[in-house]
Amino acid sequence: GIARMRGFGTTIFTEMTSLAVRTGAINLGQGFPDTDGPGAMLRAAVKAIQSGQNQYAPGSGTPDLRSAIARHQGDWYGLDYNPDTEVLVTAGATEAIAATLLGLCEPGDEVLCVEPYYDSYAAVIALAGAVRRPVTLRPPDYRLDTAALAASITPRTRVILINSPHNPTGAVFDREELTEVARLCVEHDLIAVTDEVYEHIVFHGEHVPLATLPGMRDRTVTISSAGKTFSATGWKVGWICASPDLVAAVARVKQFLTFTNAAPFQPAVATALSLPRDYFSALAADLRAKRDLLCQGLVAAGFDVHIPAGTYFVTADAAPLGGVDGIAFCRALPERAGVVAVPVGVFYDQEAHDVVPGASLVRFAFCKQDDVLHEAVRRLERLR
Amino acid sequence: GIARMRGFGTTIFTEMTSLAVRTGAINLGQGFPDTDGPGAMLRAAVKAIQSGQNQYAPGSGTPDLRSAIARHQGDWYGLDYNPDTEVLVTAGATEAIAATLLGLCEPGDEVLCVEPYYDSYAAVIALAGAVRRPVTLRPPDYRLDTAALAASITPRTRVILINSPHNPTGAVFDREELTEVARLCVEHDLIAVTDEVYEHIVFHGEHVPLATLPGMRDRTVTISSAGKTFSATGWKVGWICASPDLVAAVARVKQFLTFTNAAPFQPAVATALSLPRDYFSALAADLRAKRDLLCQGLVAAGFDVHIPAGTYFVTADAAPLGGVDGIAFCRALPERAGVVAVPVGVFYDQEAHDVVPGASLVRFAFCKQDDVLHEAVRRLERLR
Ligand SMILES: CSCCC(=O)C(=O)O
Ligand SMILES: CSCCC(=O)C(=O)O
Repeated sequence: GIARMRGFGTTIFTEMTSLAVRTGAINLGQGFPDTDGPGAMLRAAVKAIQSGQNQYAPGSGTPDLRSAIARHQGDWYGLDYNPDTEVLVTAGATEAIAATLLGLCEPGDEVLCVEPYYDSYAAVIALAGAVRRPVTLRPPDYRLDTAALAASITPRTRVILINSPHNPTGAVFDREELTEVARLCVEHDLIAVTDEVYEHIVFHGEHVPLATLPGMRDRTVTISSAGKTFSATGWKVGWICASPDLVAAVARVKQFLTFTNAAPFQPAVATALSLPRDYFSALAADLRAKRDLLCQGLVAAGFDVHIPAGTYFVTADAAPLGGVDGIAFCRALPERAGVVAVPVGVFYDQEAHDVVPGASLVRFAFCKQDDVLHEAVRRLERLR
Repeated sequence: GIARMRGFGTTIFTEMTSLAVRTGAINLGQGFPDTDGPGAMLRAAVKAIQSGQNQYAPGSGTPDLRSAIARHQGDWYGLDYNPDTEVLVTAGATEAIAATLLGLCEPGDEVLCVEPYYDSYAAVIALAGAVRRPVTLRPPDYRLDTAALAASITPRTRVILINSPHNPTGAVFDREELTEVARLCVEHDLIAVTDEVYEHIVFHGEHVPLATLPGMRDRTVTISSAGKTFSATGWKVGWICASPDLVAAVARVKQFLTFTNAAPFQPAVATALSLPRDYFSALAADLRAKRDLLCQGLVAAGFDVHIPAGTYFVTADAAPLGGVDGIAFCRALPERAGVVAVPVGVFYDQEAHDVVPGASLVRFAFCKQDDVLHEAVRRLERLR
C-alpha cells in the first residue's frame, strides 16, 4: 500500500459491524436503519428493474433524478440549480466527498475541517496529497469555534469542509455560526464543501444550508444523499449541487472513480424526493421519539448523555462507567452488555493533539425499531 | 479543477451517448447491451429489495457474493482464492481500477499499459501522480509487442496494466504473449493488474487469466465485473481477486471512495455467477452471431474491418470512407448515417506520439438486438 494511506486502516464502521456480527450483539454502531424506506420508492425500484432500466445511467445521473434534486433544493431552501449543469449524481455521499476533494485540492492545499469528523474526510484529504487543519468541537455543547476557524486560515487554505447536521456529535450549526463560516469563505475566497446528508433529521433548531448564506451560492459544493433521508443506505445514491465550474471539476474525477451508479435506483430516488412534506416530518418525528427513548436509557445506565439536535446518533460519555478509554470500552461492550457502539475518539484528529479530545465519548445510533432500542436499553442497564 | 486532471475532459462515452440521444441515432458507441441479463438474477434482485436488503452491504461485499466469486475463479480457471481475505467487491470494474491504481502507485511510479486503452486508465494513473508508459497495439492484428514491453521497464516501473480480452480492439492475448508478460513481472518484481471484464466473451482462442501463469498468483490483481457477463452494466457490481496484502492495499482506498455498493444486487450477482455453463456459452454464441452480422455489414459499407476475437466491440478503419480523422468521422456519422460509433484514436496516448496511431479507426458495439443491428447495417450502406 502507498505511504500516504498508512495510518488509515479498516474503517471503524467495518470493525464494529464485524464485531456485532461475530458476537450477535445489537448493532448501534454503524449508522443504518433496520426498516425500509417509503413503499413508493421501493416499488419504483422494482419496476425499473423489471422494465429494463439495468444499463448505465448517464454519467451525471438520469435527467429525472437531476430534476428532482434541483426541485428539492428549490422547494425546501429556495435554492435555484440548473439540473443539467449544476447537479451531479454520485455513488452515495462518500463518492461525492472523495470526488470533490480529489477534484478540487492540489497537493499541499489546506482543508479546514471540523473534528470529530466522518472518517473518510481525513483519508481522502490525504489521498489528494492535501493537508487537513482540524477545528475542534468539544462536549458538552459542540459549538463551532469560529474564532479558531478564522485563526486556522493560511494562504494555502483552499477548502472549508463543513458537516451539518453533524456526525458523530448530533450538533446542528445555527445561522449565526454558519454566517461566520460564510463570511470567512468570502473574505478569503475559499470553496465550501458541505455534507448535509442529515438535512431532514433535525429535532431542535433548523437546518441552514450553507449555500443559502450571503456570497455562498457559487462557492459551495453541497453534498447530500438518499441513504439517510429514505432509509436506503445500501443503494448508494448521492449527489452534489454547485455552480457549473465546480460541478465540472468534480465530475472530471468522479467519472473515473465509478463512472455512474445505481441505474434502477435513480428513478426510485426521484420518486422519493417528490414525496409530500408529511413523509419528511414523519421521519424526523419518528426519530425524535427514538432519540428520547435511547437517551433516557443511556442516562439510566449511567452515561453522561449529550442530547443531539439532529442526525440519528447520540454521543455519551462513558467515563462514569469506567470508559475513560472509549475504544477499549466499545471493544468490550458486546461482551459486557450485548450492544455495539462506536468510539468517538477515532473521529478526532490523532495527530493534532497530545491528548485526543473525546477519548471517553461513545456514539450510539438510534435509527432502529423500538423493540430493538428497548432491548438495547435493558441490556445497557447491566452496566450500572 | 486540479492541474493533473487537465487534459481529461468528459469521457468519450458520455459525449457519444449524448450525441446519440440528441440525434436519435442508433447508439453503437458506449458498450452496453439493449437486453436484460438472466431472469433468475433479476428476480433475485427484486426479492432482495422486497425482503429488506436495502442497507449497507459489508465493505468487502456480502459473504455470499465473495464466495460465489471465489468459486467462479476455481471452477473456471482452477484459481483458489479465500473469499474472506482475497476477494473484494467494488462499484464496478471502474472503481476496482481506480482503487487498485490509487492504492498501489506512489507519485512517480511508472505504470506500463497497453494502448489503445479504456479511458479511465490514463486518468487514474494521473490522479495517483504516477506516470504511464504505453506499449502500442497496431492494426491489423493488434498483437502484444512484448519486446517493446520489456524495453519500457525502468527501475521506477511498479505495475503492468493488462486488459484481455482487450477493449477497444477485441484482441484476446494468447498464452505465449501473456507468459512473456508473466516472465517480465517475475523478473522485475512487478505487480500485474489485469482487467478481464470480457472474460466470458471470447470467439476465437481462449481466455487465459494472467493469475494462472507461473509466478503470478500472488502478484496479480484480477479485476472483473457483472456488467458485461450478465448484461447489468447499470448495477455497478465489480470485484478484484488478489493476495491478502494486495487486497488490503486496495481496500484501504476503496473504502473511502464508495465504502460499499449495490446491496440488493450483490445476492443477485451471486445467483448469476452460479448459473450453469450453458448460460455462459450461450452468451458467447449469441454475441458471435451478432459480431458476424455487424462485421459483414461494415465490410459491405466499405470499412476495413478487424474481426475481433473477443469483447463486444469491433474496430474498423474508416479511411476508405474518407474517415482519415476518426473523431470528425464519428461526430458526423449520426447525420450521415444515423449511427453512433466511438473513435479509437482517443484511446491511444495523445502525448506519446507525434502522429497518434489508429486515428482513422472507429469502434462499433454489437451487443444489440438483431433488428437494431440489421437497421444499423442498412443505414451504414448510405456511406458507400
Ligand atoms: C459508510 S459507513 C458509516 C455510516 C455512517 O454514516 C455512520 O455510521 O457514521
Ligand atoms: C463506462 S462507459 C464505457 C463502457 C465500456 O466499457 C465501453 O464502451 O468501452
